[in-house]
Amino acid sequence: MSHLSHQEITILFFSLAILLTLARFLGEVAMRFHQPAILGEILAGILLGPTVLGIIAPGIQDFLFPSEKHLSLVLHGLTTVAITLFLLVAGMEVDLSSVWRQGRMALMISLFGMIIPFAIGFFAASYFPQFFGAQMEADYFIFALFMGTAFSISALPVIAKTMMDLNLYRSDLGMLVISVAIINDIVGWLIFAVILGMMGGHTPGGMNVSHTIFYILIFAVFILSIGRWLLDRILPWLQAHTSWPGGILGFALSCALFCAAFTEWIGIHAIFGAFLFGVALGDSRHLRERTRATIDQFVSFFFAPLFFASIGLKVNFITNFDLLLVVVIVVTATISKVLGCTWGARLGGLSSNESWAIGFGMNSRGAMEIILGLLALQAGVIGDRTFVALVIMALLTSMSSGTLMQRFLKPQKLIHFYDFLTAKHFRCRMRATERQEAVHELVRVVCEGTNLNPEMVSHLVWNREQMAPTGLENGVAIPNARLQHLMIPIIAVGFSEEGIDFDARDGQLAKLIFLILTPLDDHRIQLDIIADIAKIFKQSAVIEKAMEAKTYTEFLALAKSVSQSADRI
Amino acid sequence: MSHLSHQEITILFFSLAILLTLARFLGEVAMRFHQPAILGEILAGILLGPTVLGIIAPGIQDFLFPSEKHLSLVLHGLTTVAITLFLLVAGMEVDLSSVWRQGRMALMISLFGMIIPFAIGFFAASYFPQFFGAQMEADYFIFALFMGTAFSISALPVIAKTMMDLNLYRSDLGMLVISVAIINDIVGWLIFAVILGMMGGHTPGGMNVSHTIFYILIFAVFILSIGRWLLDRILPWLQAHTSWPGGILGFALSCALFCAAFTEWIGIHAIFGAFLFGVALGDSRHLRERTRATIDQFVSFFFAPLFFASIGLKVNFITNFDLLLVVVIVVTATISKVLGCTWGARLGGLSSNESWAIGFGMNSRGAMEIILGLLALQAGVIGDRTFVALVIMALLTSMSSGTLMQRFLKPQKLIHFYDFLTAKHFRCRMRATERQEAVHELVRVVCEGTNLNPEMVSHLVWNREQMAPTGLENGVAIPNARLQHLMIPIIAVGFSEEGIDFDARDGQLAKLIFLILTPLDDHRIQLDIIADIAKIFKQSAVIEKAMEAKTYTEFLALAKSVSQSADRI
Repeated sequence: MSHLSHQEITILFFSLAILLTLARFLGEVAMRFHQPAILGEILAGILLGPTVLGIIAPGIQDFLFPSEKHLSLVLHGLTTVAITLFLLVAGMEVDLSSVWRQGRMALMISLFGMIIPFAIGFFAASYFPQFFGAQMEADYFIFALFMGTAFSISALPVIAKTMMDLNLYRSDLGMLVISVAIINDIVGWLIFAVILGMMGGHTPGGMNVSHTIFYILIFAVFILSIGRWLLDRILPWLQAHTSWPGGILGFALSCALFCAAFTEWIGIHAIFGAFLFGVALGDSRHLRERTRATIDQFVSFFFAPLFFASIGLKVNFITNFDLLLVVVIVVTATISKVLGCTWGARLGGLSSNESWAIGFGMNSRGAMEIILGLLALQAGVIGDRTFVALVIMALLTSMSSGTLMQRFLKPQKLIHFYDFLTAKHFRCRMRATERQEAVHELVRVVCEGTNLNPEMVSHLVWNREQMAPTGLENGVAIPNARLQHLMIPIIAVGFSEEGIDFDARDGQLAKLIFLILTPLDDHRIQLDIIADIAKIFKQSAVIEKAMEAKTYTEFLALAKSVSQSADRI
Repeated sequence: MSHLSHQEITILFFSLAILLTLARFLGEVAMRFHQPAILGEILAGILLGPTVLGIIAPGIQDFLFPSEKHLSLVLHGLTTVAITLFLLVAGMEVDLSSVWRQGRMALMISLFGMIIPFAIGFFAASYFPQFFGAQMEADYFIFALFMGTAFSISALPVIAKTMMDLNLYRSDLGMLVISVAIINDIVGWLIFAVILGMMGGHTPGGMNVSHTIFYILIFAVFILSIGRWLLDRILPWLQAHTSWPGGILGFALSCALFCAAFTEWIGIHAIFGAFLFGVALGDSRHLRERTRATIDQFVSFFFAPLFFASIGLKVNFITNFDLLLVVVIVVTATISKVLGCTWGARLGGLSSNESWAIGFGMNSRGAMEIILGLLALQAGVIGDRTFVALVIMALLTSMSSGTLMQRFLKPQKLIHFYDFLTAKHFRCRMRATERQEAVHELVRVVCEGTNLNPEMVSHLVWNREQMAPTGLENGVAIPNARLQHLMIPIIAVGFSEEGIDFDARDGQLAKLIFLILTPLDDHRIQLDIIADIAKIFKQSAVIEKAMEAKTYTEFLALAKSVSQSADRI
């Protein structure tokens, strides 16, 4: 058997470690600035690839990521498995049943949102193939079809994430946008699969193009009808009769690999099989949230960063950067997509603001565009220059989407109480043993170093407390007040080991006490903060765990992780 | 860049899919017979490798798992990453603090349990190197050291699993066995790391043996002291300031890869770095159960089956099967290990029965022995024949361990109510609207086709019910009786949409009704079943979800997955 040598294994682990670390780190930085993580992940690859490291230290770059040796084969194998599993997860996010509920409107928007950019992309590329970077040996018709698809595709995962960030995911508008994106995704991928089938270079072994197209359509119809029906019956059986979650995880991943092998074999690409299987799997109401989360998390935070970072290794993003081409592609793709979707939404009867919001929302291209571009690059349909322009277009549209949507909608950002908490306002052991004292103590903590008058604030909170006691269940209390000249909310937290009577309904003494001060004129934020605290500290196990925190950081870590697990469900 | 061809990608996915499917399937079958999953996983590889498929259909075998092409490189890379992540998980299961608690006794047992088998293995291999299969070119001293280590190692994951199966994990004896296994594991691996360092063939680039040993000891001490301390501080910070669980997952996996690269570089093997990092990581009380489970599950059910199945691909288990060698190795290894541990336990003051139980418990070699053997095989220290014997020894000792332990302990198997439930006794919609009627209805369901007299049973249950009503919280009721001539418990389940008054404390009507009939003389089983039902149907969300089940299979699936999630925590 061919083996990797000792040195190759060392380099393999070292390069994977560096790729993953930098990709996750820059991904986190991107998210901190409310940008999709993929932006940072690709940037990591660009830094480690020929674009930056290859210029600064070509020796190190070639040592870590050698281009013509065993290791590049292994890396290619690993990233191929990675992207296939990523598409499985992307497919699992597709909720077909929600599409039926949205019905005609979603269909209309996605139709307009696909046909218009497709037509514009197709004709632009037909008339100016050289400008858009058609390869010499490529068939111009296929090239134009590809550019049409590249303009019309959108990225469901990025769109779903944007909706969640804007707290719109479960609103009517959110569900509509998601449904449109789902239709867009499935139809877009099928069209692209057909185009891939038409590329002679990609169907070896002489499989006929029409056979390829026939097979992929049969496969799609089969898996989305009979396959879905079967899965919905097999999953409960698996959960009942095999070990949990091993049975279902093994089954899901095996099937995804089989479907991937099948679509690769018929001359398309492995990712389509995994994607379609993911759609059928994710649609079953018997797939537990927990199983979904395990696959999702491992793939999103291990395989996906490795894959997206590896993109930056393939191409030099500086020498292949063509400003004019980038501008033309970004502008044309954005205008055609936004106009198409907005037009469709207006015709469907939505208000002007909502229609524009949908248009900009659908403009995210994200990961999907990049994967599409990569396949076309590997198939020789486009060159490095066009690939770089498509990647930049994908990133710019994804980055701008959320901000532009917000312009047309009343922002409804998700409020978390810990966004208003600081280490200064955290009291690990309260001295107070009685309610009024406790209020005083926390008020003093908050007012220190500000121009708030502790006497006055204390008085307000105490008045409020006397009107209606603020003890919640399980030993949480939330004394609060609204203050006139406050700009943003201030929250303080205190632990009382003995407990303080806040007159809770269940008679328990309060051990975890939040002082909540909010601006007078913002009714909503006070309610949001209280609801958030009540949601996070619902279970007594969480409260006990919170009381064990010895530092502010530990407390914040707990609150965040509980809150984010709750958000997922 | 070197790329896999279209056909190679097809075969890659196809062979991964087949490996994973068969490994998971046979793993499930093994677990069904209360054997470790690894048994089935290795068997899958033997079936697909040169041993079986290679004989029946050599063409197909060579097509799927070609030995001298690109694909075998990719498979080697993938399985190397897989085993490294598996060792990360194995390390995370090591709980150093529990070792301190057990203290002297654990140290004594593990000392005796290592020195005696090590000495016997070492001397046996020194005196009969040819018989034990030392390779011509191997250093006999290193070979004897290796055989000593192979005899003295044990497999923490398998032992932990056996303890859980026997419901002993949290007992005093269970914690003691686990602690012994932990010491055994860490010391065993360190010794083996040193031996690997001594193998000239494995330290390329001319790194001096003493340097290698020096580095690995420094690394181990560093990571288990300063590294552990650092991790305990970094984890809360990561959870507080990065996305959850992405920040922590990315961090853990990146660090594991870096440590793996480091130990591979100093001339040992990548897995040691991952293992030691896993120990340090798993020891932090800030690592959430959820994060641990995500890594554990994905690795255990994707990477581990692929790795263990790939072992069967490497060697022909029939032509290399040497009955005498297998018998000698199995018998000597078992006797020396069991005697050593039992002796140590007796000296420590445990009872004879407990000491023998510990001895047989520690005899599991499982995954660790196989990994050890594989490294020695790759380093040229042992040949195929010895490798096959070690694999068989590992499997036999793991399979027999649980059964033999039970002989010396009162069995305390975990009871689950659904083990006594059948499809026949599942009533999706009850007709009864009132308590006595409901009891009659479920009793009739149970008695149908048996020789139980429904009138009599009904009477008993109703009498019991009148003495003390059986309505639990949240709408669950458990009418029950103990019957004289019953051999095993019988349980029936009924749903009542309107709810039936079982006089619960919280005043809620019962919607989920369990009829529980148990043998008269077995007090314990009735209590165990009731406790299990109360634990599983504690939360109202679970009860609502259960009521949605349309078939027995769906209900069973829910109960099992809730129960098994609860067992984990």
